[in-house]
Amino acid sequence: MSDPASLPSAWLRDNCRCARCRDPRNGQKLFQITDLPRDLAVSTQSRTTVDGAPGWEVVWEPDGHVSAYTEAWIAGTQDPGLAAADAGDDRTEDAKTLWTAADLAGAVPAADWSDYLRDPDTRLRTLEAVARLGFAVLRGVPVREGQVTEVARTFGFVRETNYGRIFEVRVEETPNNLAFTSERIGPHTDNPYRDPVPTLQLLHCLVNSAEGGDSGLVDGFTAAALLRAEDPAAFDVLTRTPVPFSFADATTRLSAHRPTVGTDAHGRIREIRFNNRSTGTLRLPAAGIEAFYAAYRSFAEILLRPGLRLDFRLTPGDCLIFDNTRLLHARTAFASSGGRHLQGCYADLDGLFSTIAVLHHDRPGGAGTDPRRGAAA
Amino acid sequence: MSDPASLPSAWLRDNCRCARCRDPRNGQKLFQITDLPRDLAVSTQSRTTVDGAPGWEVVWEPDGHVSAYTEAWIAGTQDPGLAAADAGDDRTEDAKTLWTAADLAGAVPAADWSDYLRDPDTRLRTLEAVARLGFAVLRGVPVREGQVTEVARTFGFVRETNYGRIFEVRVEETPNNLAFTSERIGPHTDNPYRDPVPTLQLLHCLVNSAEGGDSGLVDGFTAAALLRAEDPAAFDVLTRTPVPFSFADATTRLSAHRPTVGTDAHGRIREIRFNNRSTGTLRLPAAGIEAFYAAYRSFAEILLRPGLRLDFRLTPGDCLIFDNTRLLHARTAFASSGGRHLQGCYADLDGLFSTIAVLHHDRPGGAGTDPRRGAAA
Repeated sequence: MSDPASLPSAWLRDNCRCARCRDPRNGQKLFQITDLPRDLAVSTQSRTTVDGAPGWEVVWEPDGHVSAYTEAWIAGTQDPGLAAADAGDDRTEDAKTLWTAADLAGAVPAADWSDYLRDPDTRLRTLEAVARLGFAVLRGVPVREGQVTEVARTFGFVRETNYGRIFEVRVEETPNNLAFTSERIGPHTDNPYRDPVPTLQLLHCLVNSAEGGDSGLVDGFTAAALLRAEDPAAFDVLTRTPVPFSFADATTRLSAHRPTVGTDAHGRIREIRFNNRSTGTLRLPAAGIEAFYAAYRSFAEILLRPGLRLDFRLTPGDCLIFDNTRLLHARTAFASSGGRHLQGCYADLDGLFSTIAVLHHDRPGGAGTDPRRGAAA
Repeated sequence: MSDPASLPSAWLRDNCRCARCRDPRNGQKLFQITDLPRDLAVSTQSRTTVDGAPGWEVVWEPDGHVSAYTEAWIAGTQDPGLAAADAGDDRTEDAKTLWTAADLAGAVPAADWSDYLRDPDTRLRTLEAVARLGFAVLRGVPVREGQVTEVARTFGFVRETNYGRIFEVRVEETPNNLAFTSERIGPHTDNPYRDPVPTLQLLHCLVNSAEGGDSGLVDGFTAAALLRAEDPAAFDVLTRTPVPFSFADATTRLSAHRPTVGTDAHGRIREIRFNNRSTGTLRLPAAGIEAFYAAYRSFAEILLRPGLRLDFRLTPGDCLIFDNTRLLHARTAFASSGGRHLQGCYADLDGLFSTIAVLHHDRPGGAGTDPRRGAAA
């Protein structure tokens, strides 16, 4: 068991939970790191009881400030296993269950809309599927215009863009995007030319009586992990080469320079951008261009492996919610004489993860029902 | 002058501009990279005229596809100077003018609201100040509730969050955030616990008759560049250490793990997150914690250097627009008996950069007035 004097001083003091250091109303820290003395050290430490639990009282030098920590809190910060599960970045591959189509045979994450609204556990299970697998389908969502934003409202906020709060996925007379035609569209992520990219997409099916127009999803994290295993140098090229993505119509001219595979500081996969439709002109010395195109093609070929793609058909009332930083979506061509009409909107993962955390916190036995743990939030 | 056969084949073909390869209605590519033959090569090349300009016609093997490129386009892709200016990431330090307070003495970027609405050049200059310096002030914006979202509408879209479409910066009875008190707030970026973070913030002053409550801005890119120059190892630690940021109230539990200084694949500064209020408990081996806290404190001390901070006072009708991925904002404490009321909203840089690009494109002499260049967009 670690005692306070054995822990890094600035870190321990920065985590002081007294009412002078943290606003008891909202848990926010009330000081800047520069408000702390430079030469902080534990002057005395003694065992005490904190909120009814065993803990330590610390008197600091040089300023005489007094802090108290429960043993459980200290132990929690020192347990590497708990740190990985509890404090990790929920956006990297380590927090995900990577899948291929076979893994989801008969197990597509889905819920009935009325159950989802009524039952917090169904809501939690559905949103956790989006967090962990990258998607979920709600069935029986009322078939009415604008309903897709009501779905977004259940866990977050619509991200409005130049396509509107809602975009209509159907055949348009003068499409400003291939999505608004009846063409086949290969696996891609949306809006790579936008930074920040919309991190979630919702597609609500209102009509799908056309021949064709089936949907497909590919786990881009699985594909990137395969590339890393099979050709580490190519993976590395895709993480290091910013790609110029662009989009232009009469009123909008967007561009972003981001790598195909975004990684965190530890090299973990965190974000995929893949959309040849809007890939602009790469400007690099010839050797860099050749290395990029070889790696890009290898990744594109992995994305097309039949085992990776989960195929399904959206029927009226289905609403697909998916992580646009991870999953690629696709559709088959359809006969434009038949009707096919989806309404889509973008949203963001921050709200979805917040809703998951609140549902966990508020459920029976969750931290929200335990006054001691709730107060430490 | 490069000829087509001397250029990387996959890259050149991926940039084919024929109507079979790109939708003439929207400029989007109609093929996937995997639709191209693996062993592409220039079969024959010959000089020709493309859209009235000198160019090259290329016949490809093995598929016999024919592409045409203007010499100007080829030259443009090969000129490293043009590439840097024209095709670079507009979000890194290389695309910015870094500043200290003295650089902006008497030169705070500002415009009158009515001029901004009437005159595209004023609009362009104002929005380019946000892009290049990180902020601008609009004066004489109508003092009415909700007006701040009208300002956002002139260049983009509001990012709604748990704080609402609009948030009220004034003294609240039960604040869920220190912003909604009368306390001094040191330089910080907003919502580091959100990913994606809101990339723009707007603050519209409705009332400021309180004693105190002055505003301050610090260029976080300047501060990070100073740290890099003075202590490269500390800079490196801040780019490599994901920091756990969090926020919780009764209905929201947000968290994000992102470094203090985000850099691109070339190591260029691209994003700052700094807010001790919402910095959670870092979990690392003790040596990592000590290195982080030393670097974090060094950066915090640079941010407080008097020469860096631009101080000013918002008066009713002023609307400050600033880049929340770069600038830190601060305010002095104020007497809560006096009135101080700002309305704020978040928005995103993608829309702002798009509006700048459209204004450039549409101005006299811009690409939008030249049918040849316009068609190539």
